[in-house]
This record gives sequence, C-alpha cells and structure tokens, in this order.
Amino acid sequence: MSLDADNRLDSIVTTTATADPDNAARFAAALERADLVAAELRATAAERDRANRTPRAEVELLRGHDLLQVQEPVAYGGSGLNYAQAAAITRRIARGDTSIAHLIGYHYAQTRVAPLFGTPRQADEQSRRNAEGKLFWGGVQNPRGGSDLVLTRDRDGFRLNGRRSFASGASLGDHLSVTATYDGELVFVSLPAGREGFRALEDWDNIGQRLTDSGGVVFDNARISRSEILGDDPITGRVPSPYQTLVTPHWQLAFVNFYIGTAEGALEEALDWTRLHAAPWETSGVERATDDAYILQTVGELRSEISAAGLLADRAGAALQAALDIGPSLTERQRAEAAVAIYEAKYLTTKVSLAAASRLFEIQGARATTNAYGFDRHWRNLRTHTVHDPVAYKAREVGDWVLNRRAPAFSLYR
Amino acid sequence: MSLDADNRLDSIVTTTATADPDNAARFAAALERADLVAAELRATAAERDRANRTPRAEVELLRGHDLLQVQEPVAYGGSGLNYAQAAAITRRIARGDTSIAHLIGYHYAQTRVAPLFGTPRQADEQSRRNAEGKLFWGGVQNPRGGSDLVLTRDRDGFRLNGRRSFASGASLGDHLSVTATYDGELVFVSLPAGREGFRALEDWDNIGQRLTDSGGVVFDNARISRSEILGDDPITGRVPSPYQTLVTPHWQLAFVNFYIGTAEGALEEALDWTRLHAAPWETSGVERATDDAYILQTVGELRSEISAAGLLADRAGAALQAALDIGPSLTERQRAEAAVAIYEAKYLTTKVSLAAASRLFEIQGARATTNAYGFDRHWRNLRTHTVHDPVAYKAREVGDWVLNRRAPAFSLYR
Amino acid sequence: MSLDADNRLDSIVTTTATADPDNAARFAAALERADLVAAELRATAAERDRANRTPRAEVELLRGHDLLQVQEPVAYGGSGLNYAQAAAITRRIARGDTSIAHLIGYHYAQTRVAPLFGTPRQADEQSRRNAEGKLFWGGVQNPRGGSDLVLTRDRDGFRLNGRRSFASGASLGDHLSVTATYDGELVFVSLPAGREGFRALEDWDNIGQRLTDSGGVVFDNARISRSEILGDDPITGRVPSPYQTLVTPHWQLAFVNFYIGTAEGALEEALDWTRLHAAPWETSGVERATDDAYILQTVGELRSEISAAGLLADRAGAALQAALDIGPSLTERQRAEAAVAIYEAKYLTTKVSLAAASRLFEIQGARATTNAYGFDRHWRNLRTHTVHDPVAYKAREVGDWVLNRRAPAFSLYR
Amino acid sequence: MSLDADNRLDSIVTTTATADPDNAARFAAALERADLVAAELRATAAERDRANRTPRAEVELLRGHDLLQVQEPVAYGGSGLNYAQAAAITRRIARGDTSIAHLIGYHYAQTRVAPLFGTPRQADEQSRRNAEGKLFWGGVQNPRGGSDLVLTRDRDGFRLNGRRSFASGASLGDHLSVTATYDGELVFVSLPAGREGFRALEDWDNIGQRLTDSGGVVFDNARISRSEILGDDPITGRVPSPYQTLVTPHWQLAFVNFYIGTAEGALEEALDWTRLHAAPWETSGVERATDDAYILQTVGELRSEISAAGLLADRAGAALQAALDIGPSLTERQRAEAAVAIYEAKYLTTKVSLAAASRLFEIQGARATTNAYGFDRHWRNLRTHTVHDPVAYKAREVGDWVLNRRAPAFSLYR
Repeated sequence: MSLDADNRLDSIVTTTATADPDNAARFAAALERADLVAAELRATAAERDRANRTPRAEVELLRGHDLLQVQEPVAYGGSGLNYAQAAAITRRIARGDTSIAHLIGYHYAQTRVAPLFGTPRQADEQSRRNAEGKLFWGGVQNPRGGSDLVLTRDRDGFRLNGRRSFASGASLGDHLSVTATYDGELVFVSLPAGREGFRALEDWDNIGQRLTDSGGVVFDNARISRSEILGDDPITGRVPSPYQTLVTPHWQLAFVNFYIGTAEGALEEALDWTRLHAAPWETSGVERATDDAYILQTVGELRSEISAAGLLADRAGAALQAALDIGPSLTERQRAEAAVAIYEAKYLTTKVSLAAASRLFEIQGARATTNAYGFDRHWRNLRTHTVHDPVAYKAREVGDWVLNRRAPAFSLYR
Repeated sequence: MSLDADNRLDSIVTTTATADPDNAARFAAALERADLVAAELRATAAERDRANRTPRAEVELLRGHDLLQVQEPVAYGGSGLNYAQAAAITRRIARGDTSIAHLIGYHYAQTRVAPLFGTPRQADEQSRRNAEGKLFWGGVQNPRGGSDLVLTRDRDGFRLNGRRSFASGASLGDHLSVTATYDGELVFVSLPAGREGFRALEDWDNIGQRLTDSGGVVFDNARISRSEILGDDPITGRVPSPYQTLVTPHWQLAFVNFYIGTAEGALEEALDWTRLHAAPWETSGVERATDDAYILQTVGELRSEISAAGLLADRAGAALQAALDIGPSLTERQRAEAAVAIYEAKYLTTKVSLAAASRLFEIQGARATTNAYGFDRHWRNLRTHTVHDPVAYKAREVGDWVLNRRAPAFSLYR
Repeated sequence: MSLDADNRLDSIVTTTATADPDNAARFAAALERADLVAAELRATAAERDRANRTPRAEVELLRGHDLLQVQEPVAYGGSGLNYAQAAAITRRIARGDTSIAHLIGYHYAQTRVAPLFGTPRQADEQSRRNAEGKLFWGGVQNPRGGSDLVLTRDRDGFRLNGRRSFASGASLGDHLSVTATYDGELVFVSLPAGREGFRALEDWDNIGQRLTDSGGVVFDNARISRSEILGDDPITGRVPSPYQTLVTPHWQLAFVNFYIGTAEGALEEALDWTRLHAAPWETSGVERATDDAYILQTVGELRSEISAAGLLADRAGAALQAALDIGPSLTERQRAEAAVAIYEAKYLTTKVSLAAASRLFEIQGARATTNAYGFDRHWRNLRTHTVHDPVAYKAREVGDWVLNRRAPAFSLYR
Repeated sequence: MSLDADNRLDSIVTTTATADPDNAARFAAALERADLVAAELRATAAERDRANRTPRAEVELLRGHDLLQVQEPVAYGGSGLNYAQAAAITRRIARGDTSIAHLIGYHYAQTRVAPLFGTPRQADEQSRRNAEGKLFWGGVQNPRGGSDLVLTRDRDGFRLNGRRSFASGASLGDHLSVTATYDGELVFVSLPAGREGFRALEDWDNIGQRLTDSGGVVFDNARISRSEILGDDPITGRVPSPYQTLVTPHWQLAFVNFYIGTAEGALEEALDWTRLHAAPWETSGVERATDDAYILQTVGELRSEISAAGLLADRAGAALQAALDIGPSLTERQRAEAAVAIYEAKYLTTKVSLAAASRLFEIQGARATTNAYGFDRHWRNLRTHTVHDPVAYKAREVGDWVLNRRAPAFSLYR
C-alpha cells in the first residue's frame, strides 16, 4: 500500500480559517449575500444573455452586496476570507449566472497577484485600496501567444504596447491586472482604469459567457510607472518560486467553481420548472412527469454526478488554500499536489457540468426549449469556457503526476 | 441460434427502386441538387439562425431546385423516388441546415398521408397537384393533447375548430396536412393554404430549429369539404391497418435523417474550420492543431460513431421502404419490424449527434466559440428536436420488441 | 435559491467522534492495521480467487489484527470506532481484496443490528462478547423472497425452518445474524454457530466475490430461545422507527466502500504494474509506456473519477453517522437524507469502479491479461456485487427525493 | 460539400461475389454450417473456458463442417467465398465462442498471405492443399518486438531461430504461417507442422480467449527450404505494394467481426436467460423482470448499439473486399480507405462489445453471476483481445485520415 500522495494531500487540506468562529460567521454572511445576488441574477439571466450588454449593472450588484472585497482584511473593510472561501462565493454566484461568476472569480484571482508577486508594501496598499474603494478588477492576462504585450523602458518610466484578446472585465475594471513581457520575461503590471493609450475594443460576442466583457484590448504606448510593476528590482532575472506559480491554479480553481456552480444552479432551475410545467409522456403510464421512471432516474444520476464533482471542487479549494497557507516555503512537490487536486476537479467538473446542461432537457421535455426560458445558456456558457484550455491536457497532467510524479510545468495555463 | 428477427429484417430491406437504373439516375441527380442547396444554406445558416425570420426564401430555394416533388411520379413531373430516397435527401439538406431539413422532411412525410389514408383518387390527384405546382406542405399534426382540434359536421360540409402548437411549416405551406378528431376518432384533412378561419400565430421562438416555422395555429370555424377529408365513407369506425400505421414511422425516419445529417455536416464544417483556424496547444509538442494526439483521436472517434449511426439510419430507411413496398397486406409483425428498425436508429442518432455537436468544440478550441460562426446552432437544433418525444421510450420500445416481441402500439408518436 | 437539502445535510455531517483525539488515534491505528492486512491479502488475491476455498485463513487474519471488534467500546477491548470509521476500514481492506472487504463490511453491519433492534441489555451483552471473543459474524439475511425462513413457537422456545441463498460468512461465523418471519413479520435473531439443525451448503461458486462464503444455508427445525430474538416482548406488532430502518443503509454504505476501495486498489495495482512491465506502442513515438499521451490521459481521468466517487462515499459515511448520532429521535426526513446520501454514492461508486476495473487494461496493455496476475478479478468482483440490487432503482430513489421529497420506503434493500 | 471520401468509399464497396447466385448459395450454406457450429460451441463454452484445454476438438468441429476451406476455389473443393464472406463466418462463430472465432478468423487471414506475397504458383499450390486436406493454419506472427525470429541462409537452404509469444493456433496448425526477418527485412514463411526444431510452449493461460492456443513458440535451428519462403527471388529488397499491405487489415477485420459477433451472441444468450430466469425487482411494480422499465430500456440501447456497430463491421468487410477485388493496381489512397473503414469499425466494435458484455448483467440480475453459466467469459474474452493493439491509436489513425488525409503507415498492426 502506498497511497501516500492521497495521505499527504489529506494532511495539507486543514486550513486555519475555518477553525476561527469570526471567520466562519463572516463567510456565512458572504455566502448569504452571494445567494441573494445569484437569485436576482437568475431571474433576468436569460434576458440579459440575449441583450449582450456590458455587465455594468451586474458589477454594481456585486459591489453593492460587498462581495468584491471579501478577501481583504477585516481591518481595511473586507471580510478576511481566504481564497478557497472566495471560490465558494464564485460557485454560489454561478448558480444564478455563469458570466457574472466568471467576472467575480477572475476578479478574486486578479487581486491575488500582488500578494504573490508584489512587494509586501505593494500588496498591502492594493489591499487597502480594494477594500476602501470596493474596487472591481479587470484583467489583460490571456496568455495565448504571450509575447503580444510588450513593456519597454522609456526614460524614468515604461511604455506598454500591444493587443490582447479575451480580456475579461477589462472595459469595466476600476483597476486592471496585466501580464506583459519585458526583456522577454513575464512581468505583472497593475494600473488604474482610464490610462491614456488603453482601449477596450468591446468586441466580445460569443456563443456563451456573453456577459463577461471578454473582448480585446489595445495598449498604445501607455505610460507605466515603476510602482505599477509588481516586485522589487531588478524587474527581470527571477525565476518564480513554487509559491508564486500558484498564480495559475487560482484561475483554474475559479473555473472549477463556476462550472460546477452552473450545474448546481441549472439542475435546481430545471427541477423547479419540471415541477410546474413538465407534461407526462403518453405511454409512461403516469399522470405527472415527476413520476416518470426515466425522469426520476435521470434526476438521480445527475444529482449524484454533480454532488461528487462538487466535493472534488471543495477538495481542490482546500488543497490550494493549504498550499497558500504554507506560504513562500512551499516546495515543488507541495505545489504539484495542490495543482493536481485542482486539475482533477477541472477534468470532472468540465465533464459533469457539460453533460448535465445538455441532459436536463430530457427531464423537462420539449416545452423547455422555448427561447424565453433561455435554458440553453447553461450549455453555451459551459461549452464556451471549457475550451479555454483543452481538458485532455489537464487529465494528462493528472496522469503524469499520478503515474510518474512529474509535476505540471508552470505556465499561465497550468 | 435464433437471430431470426435480424434475418427477417435482412430479407425485407431489398427495395425494387434501386435496381432500376433510371430511378438511380434521378436519385443521384436529386442528391446533387440537395448538396447544392445544402452548401448554399450552410453559408448563411448562422446568420439566418440569428435573424429568426420565417423561412420563405429557403422554401423557394428547395422549390427552385425541384426538391419538393421528388416523390411524385415522373409522369406528373416528379422524380419517382421512394420514401427512403426522400429521407436521404432530407439528410443531405441537414448537412447544411437542420431547420430546413426539418421542413423538407416533414413535407415529404405529409405528402405520404394521402397514399396511406386517402382514396386512390385522392392520392393521385394530390400527387399530380404536388408535382405540377411544386407545392410545399405544412402540417398541423403535433399530437400532444390530441383532441384539441375538432372537426364537426355542418350541413353538407364540416367545420374545424381549435388550436395546435408546433405546426411546422403551417404559415408557409401551399397546402396543409391536418390531423383532427371527428366523433372522437382521428381523421386526416388536407386543405389548401388561405382557408378562412385559419391563422398561423407565427410565435415560434425556440432555442433551436428556429427556421422551422413551428409556431402555433388556430382554426376558427374553418369550412372543410368532404373531399378534403381523406378516405372513403364512412369517415369514422375504421381501425387503421398496419400498413396505414406506417404513417408515424415516416416522421421518425425524417428525424433520424436530419439528426445524423446534422452531425455529418457539423463534423465536416468543424474539420474545415480546424484546418484553417485552430491553434496548437502550448504543451502539445506539435506545431499544428491538426497534429495534436487528442484532437486526432477525437476526430476518429466522432467519425466512427457518426458513420455507424448513419448506417443504422440507412437500414431504417430500407426497412420502412420494404414495408411500404409490401403494401396494404403488411402484417403487424412486419410493421413492428420496420418501426423498431427506425427506433433503433432514433435512439442512436439522437445520442451520437448530440454528443458530436458538443464535442466538436474540443477539436476546434476556444476561438470557435465566436458567435459569428454560430457553431452552437448544431447542438441547439439537435437538443430542441431530440426532446420532441422522449428517446428513453424509443429504447424501451426496441427492448420490448427484442425481448418480448411486443410491437410498439400505434400512435402519432410511435 | 433553495438548496436547503444540501445545507441541511452539511449541517448533520459533523460527528462527535472525530473531535476526540483518543478516538482519532485509535482510528489511525486501525487503518494502519487494515492497510497491512490489505497488503498481505493483495499479494495472494489472484491465487486465492482461483482456489475458491472457504476464507477461513482470511478471517483469522482480520481477527489477528484486531479488526473485528473495532466498533465495540474501548472498555470491553474494542477500539470505540463509529460506523463511518468502520466503513473506512472496509474500504482499506477492499484495496487488497474485495471479497474479504465484503466479509468484514457485512460483519460490521451485522453487529449493528442488536443496537438498533435489541434491548439495551442484548446490545450490551453482544458488544462485550464480540470484543472479548473477537467474534466474526456471518449473516443469513438476503431478503429476496423474504418469507423463506420461518420462526415458529415451540413450547417455551422457538423453532427456525427454511433456506436462504447468498448467506455471506454463514459457514464461518462464530455468530450468525438471521432475519426471519414470525407471524408474517420481520424479526432479527442472533445465535452462536453450531446450532443443531443449521447447515451451510457451501455451494458458492460465482464469477466474482468468490471468497465471501456466500452459499446457501438450511435451518431444519433449529431451536431458538427467546433471548436470541432481538427486542422486548411482544415480538411482533411494532413498526420499525426511522432510526431502526437505518439498518439497510448500513449495508449499502458497506457496498459503497468496498466498491470504491476496489477501484482505488485496482488503480494502484495497475499503475505499479505499468511502471514495471508495460511496453510502449510502436507508433506512440515514446520510449516508455508511461510517457504515452493516451495512457497518461486515461490515468488522469480514472484518478479524477475515483477521487470524486471516494469523496461521495466519505460524505455518505458522514451522513449515516450523523443520523446514528441523533439516535432514536431521528425523523423520517433525517433518515431519508442519510439514505439518499448513501444511494447517491451507491450509484456513482458502481459506475466509476466498474468502468475503472475495465479500462485499467487500456493502461497496462495486452501482457496484463495473463491469468497469473488475475487482474480480471476486480471487474468480476464488482460486476457480481453491483447487481445485488439494481442500481437504476437507487438512482430513481435519489431522483424521487430530489424532485418530489419522497423518501425511500423501508425494506431490507433500501 | 465535399464528403468525397464517403462517396468514393460507397463506390468501391460493390463486390462482384454477391451478384453471383451460385456464390450466394454457397455463402448461405456456409453461414448455416457456421450457425450450427456456433450453437454447439455455445452449449459448452463456459465449461470449456474453465477447462482451458488445447482446442483440438473445436478445430475438428470446424473441419468437420467444411468451414476451414471456404475461401478456396470450388474446383479444389472449397466454397469460393471471398474474404468479406469469410469474415462473416468468423462473426457467426463468435456468437457461440469467441476463442474459436479467433482461431478461424486468424486461419482465414493466414491463408490469404500466400495470395498477397507468394508467387502465383505458391498461392495456387497452397490453395489446392488447403482445400484437399481441409488444413488448419496456425500462425507465428505476433509482431511486437519483430526481430525476434530470424531467418538465415544455411548452404542451399535456410535456418529459422528465435521465439515468439501469442502464436495463435501454432500448436494445433497443420500448417504454420510465420513472419521472420531476413537481412533485417520482413519475410513470410509457410511450413507444415512437425518441423524439427519447432516447439510450441503451450503456456497460454490468460483471463480470456483461453481456447485460442496462443502460447509461445520456439524455433531452434529449424530447416526452411526456399520454396517455403513466399515470393520470387530475390527474397529481400522489395517494398510491399499497397495491395500487399492489405495483409494487416485482414487481421483487423477478423478482430472486428469476432468482437461484434461476441456481442451479438452474448446479447441473445442474456435475453434467453432473462426470459427464463430473471426475477423482477421488488419496487419495480411489475410481475416479470421482462416488463421492467429499466431492463427494457437497457435491452433497447444495447440492441441499437450492437446493430450499428455490426453495420459498420459489414461496411468494413465490403471495403476490404472491394480493395482486394481491385488487385495489385490498388493505389495508396484506396488502401488507406479500406484500412480506415476497418479501423472505424475497430474502434466502435471494441467500445460497443465491451460495454455490452458488462451491461448485460444489469438485464439479468444477481443470479446470472453463478459461475456455472460463465457469462463473464464474454467480457474476459473481449477485454483480453481488445488490448491486442491500443484502440486509441486506431481512432487516431482514422482522425489523421479524415482530417489530414494521412494514410496509416504500414506495419503488421496497421
């Protein structure tokens, strides 16, 4: 018997946060606010999906319910939640609207970049600013074709040039988190919105995640000051530590949570509809669709799959949080364990949520295809985001760790 | 060994049509025209799907390519194709546009109602009229809640009252095929468009099959003459023969063909796109997406599944045609064999085409989710129509025949 | 938002046991002993599977490692573990041998019958006896065709007559737990082995679970004393309380754990073998099978599925334990929640473990089919037991609860 | 529209054989004999599987029913069937016993090596000998680690040295077909049984395909004459033509047929058993298992899947036969089309037959796991052979052809 990897994982998933009753109370309150927001979002999700407007009101809804600054210290006006708890909020929001969960999930991840790559002072200042201003962060980080955004020195400052696609929240963000290359190396830049030379193309029109404001952006010789570049001098020449490379699993954990949250919400929505509207099949021998043998079986199967994938998502959150709690001394092996726990959940939440979003119609029947309900948005949302990076490679990375103890190499995707 | 059902099936699938070289040539020509129409439809399918207009131009395209009257005798101006051949045309059209394939598939089925239930003279007159006028047929036949359209006697004629939903092509049809109840029994009515008292609600707005003109209709005391009711006197009191109950498998075969045709077209479209646009994954170790190990495997799996489901659809067509070729002497057992062959294909084409429509994005990757391509329409189209009747019951009916030799009971769904 | 069922479940899964450090230490020690036993069993599992002998030595191995009395109080010589902890031991044993896990899992469940249905004194006496004697319990409880074992009054005592099949451990048990009918009602009888009139047929020869001693048994006018019948007078006339009907979920939780434990062990075993013996495929382009893209993907997928199903099994154990901890005041709703949590896990562990047992060969390749390895036993073991009761009905019961809040009706299967 | 590959395939699948009524009659007679043999084999399959004896009697059964020489010319005493027809016989045999289908399928393929690689005279002599002697051919051809069997020149003759594993039928064959290397190139050798220096190890003991006599063999300086080496002088230096490389698809088509034939037979066997023995589930609400909603659905699904995979197997046979009918002028593209048609079927028959062999127990229930029935042998047989070569690579090869028009490179596996 040598299931040591499991055992080790089990040992690192104990987090300090949950043992603290104050934290628990603040977490419960935040979840409650998230549930309210999700309910409000769900009521209009189909309509807003069709309208495809920039999700300005939605961000205000999140802000108005004090959900943007939950990770910041209580002393600054935040809720002092850890990242695993923030991810749980993302999941609750996804029960109502996958796009908005995407926005808040990315936001939660963006605000973790400074603690990982900034100086303590940069991180602290950002934290205070986030909490006080209830700031919403957009990102310019899609890494495919990474060298397309280039930072160069310009006298005492810097200039940023280039373009990116898939920049979620970039037109809406009060602040932007940007990855660029400087002398061929990756650097992280944080800047307030409205910088001269920056332009959001607002060209996002995809089959799903329509309300994520994920269009392209252009930087045209935008000025960047030294203090907006995260980290000490020199800017280049440093290999990220295992702890810093946790940056990527932050995003992947957000994905995991908005995938499974979507499935949870879609199932609940479908069952509510079914109780009210579904008609029994003519040869079913039953008088109500809710008594149909095949419908009941399908409900049970989906519920079971969704529950299990949800637990795997929980474990993934606990694993990342445990790694974060270790801090800068995190070893490569510990980093790999946390990453792999998330990629296991990535594989399964992808599979389960997509299948659920499609099979739910088999519970509801033909009348549920009316456009007004917009029940297709779940599949469209999931299908759009689940190809963000190919899940086959996530399964492969899990396999490579389990079989060969080869850790996923760091990139902004892994 | 007693695989007798198979053997018997094998023995009935020989059709006379294909042995006739003239028929073969006309069939080949019709398929060629269908391919042209499909190519034209595909080029604008995404755009037309979004616009959601009544598919008037599309019906004219079918008419202009002489595809509406293919089943009518050559002598009258048709192509003399049999129903299995017509279903093959439906499938070709589906490679370009599932909605329009639905329209033509239903049209082909509607025009078979008169041969089954009409007098020879009614059938012949209709045939001549169809061929000469290149008529397009709409239908008011959705049977759920069957008694909602009621025919009553009114002096020397009849009156039709009630409403129906899902009346595909009803607002566009030159002629309408209507099922109604008369004294509690099912009757078939054929009437030209424009009858006073008839109104199409044009309220179809569903997540898929958007161009099928499948809104609701109302008959408000519309006059119906005796000659528009199919069959001899008396109108009621007759149990449909096994041969007549083939009416339902006609529709089911149309479904089978536009499901699998959709998958064939979607696969081809996705591969074309992949060759031009797909980007390799950063850790794939290959320079072109078309060399990616997982993409190649997925393509191979989908191709294999689609090929097999397509062959099952072919066999289903041959089985129905063989039953039709037997004619009014068809036994209940022979009817069951034909129906079950179609329901086997119904189950598998549903499963395979839905899965393909969703998995194709895993071949193409994130950029294929741009709305302009409209690649989600395949899943939406399939998802919408595959809940027309619950496929679990089709599997059950196949099982009941295979295990118990219990034939599917006749209804307008089975 | 009304995912209240989940929330309620979350609230009941806190168990008192795990907060106690002494309990935690005893649990850890028991798991360690279980791992040793599992390792020893695995080394000879293939060979013993072929030999198909009565698993006498295996029971002695369990006894020798003090695994039989783990649930009994520390004061009596047990480990004071709760049922969820016992189920975790069953799972560990299953990593080495599914048959022996079945035996110990059933044993753990049998010894819980007295606490549920006996008088406090009966339960206490049994506990003391179990701990002191390290007794192994067999069962005569398979309920299909329930009325086949009949208890009748005979002067001052009783007589038991009839036969049963699938009586796991009945020929080996130091004590037997028997369900019978008395005046048409279900009664539970506990008796020591060797009772005159009892005979084990030792006729168990099935495709899997070969070492479970699950043959038929006969009672031929065996004497039963009043004290061997669980519960107060009168024997009949009582409807089991929700708390008592937890008896069935005990078994179902055992199943869940030996299914998923089997998958965990089989995966580990297959990976060990693969590292040593697997050959790369000729066109894979890699030199070691452990670098094969498809093998890595399959490993990752299976690992992810098994992890998730394992977490669902954990949650199921916590749910049952929480219900047990509530005690006799348990409501019907609480009983339903515990049962449904287990049935969700039953569905998924069945699906996942069966699929894993079959797919592992795709990782290992052709050479792994050599009979000496006996790798097929995993599928055979799982396939044999997973049809114990049809899993489709478990999914249905989950669905009926989720959709309709209809609780699973009590029987010895639900 | 450019589904040209399909169309081209359709155009090459017309074979001359089936148009000939004499051939059709001989084919029908051979199928009838095969059905008789299959019925006889099935009756004892479970018992013979357990006994694991060398299948001597089984080969005599095939010989006694004139099934060995069906491919040889009528003039010589054969049935003049083509290879696609021979493959259909393999499939029928597999309905009764997968091992024996493997033996006859390999035999049919072995006897096609001389027509492909021998001189016309070698091929003709072999044909006559096969027909007259009703010879059974074993093979020493497993290519993994190809260079392990080495032919060297020895004065006027040759010597063969080395060992092979998985040599199906080698201990039983009247003649042996052997692949070896000579000067580093592949050569084909045919020799009668009993050659001095040849030894069959009879060490085959695997979890499935137990009656295939697939143990290892040793050649210890065995004399080989020039005439036993297929082809003209010089022995080496020739690149096989596309036509000759059809040798590998012959085997793959045999696999396809014994996989799907196994599924067909297993389904029929399970249904027969279910009608007689299966018990309804206690909460099913029906009195007979054959009325259970879930059982009927499962039967229908499996039947549909098996039908479709069977049709794909038929198409694969027609494609190979069409390529063979073209003869030595076969182009690389035509070879690829035939191979890919077979590999599509390989993927699907693997998937479908394995799933069916496992799911059938869900129809039958717990009592079907009794060892005496031996119903597990289907899964064991399929699982053993379906890892002969990894099916993921077959899917990949299909994908590479469909997406990139890259033909499968020739090897003894592709």
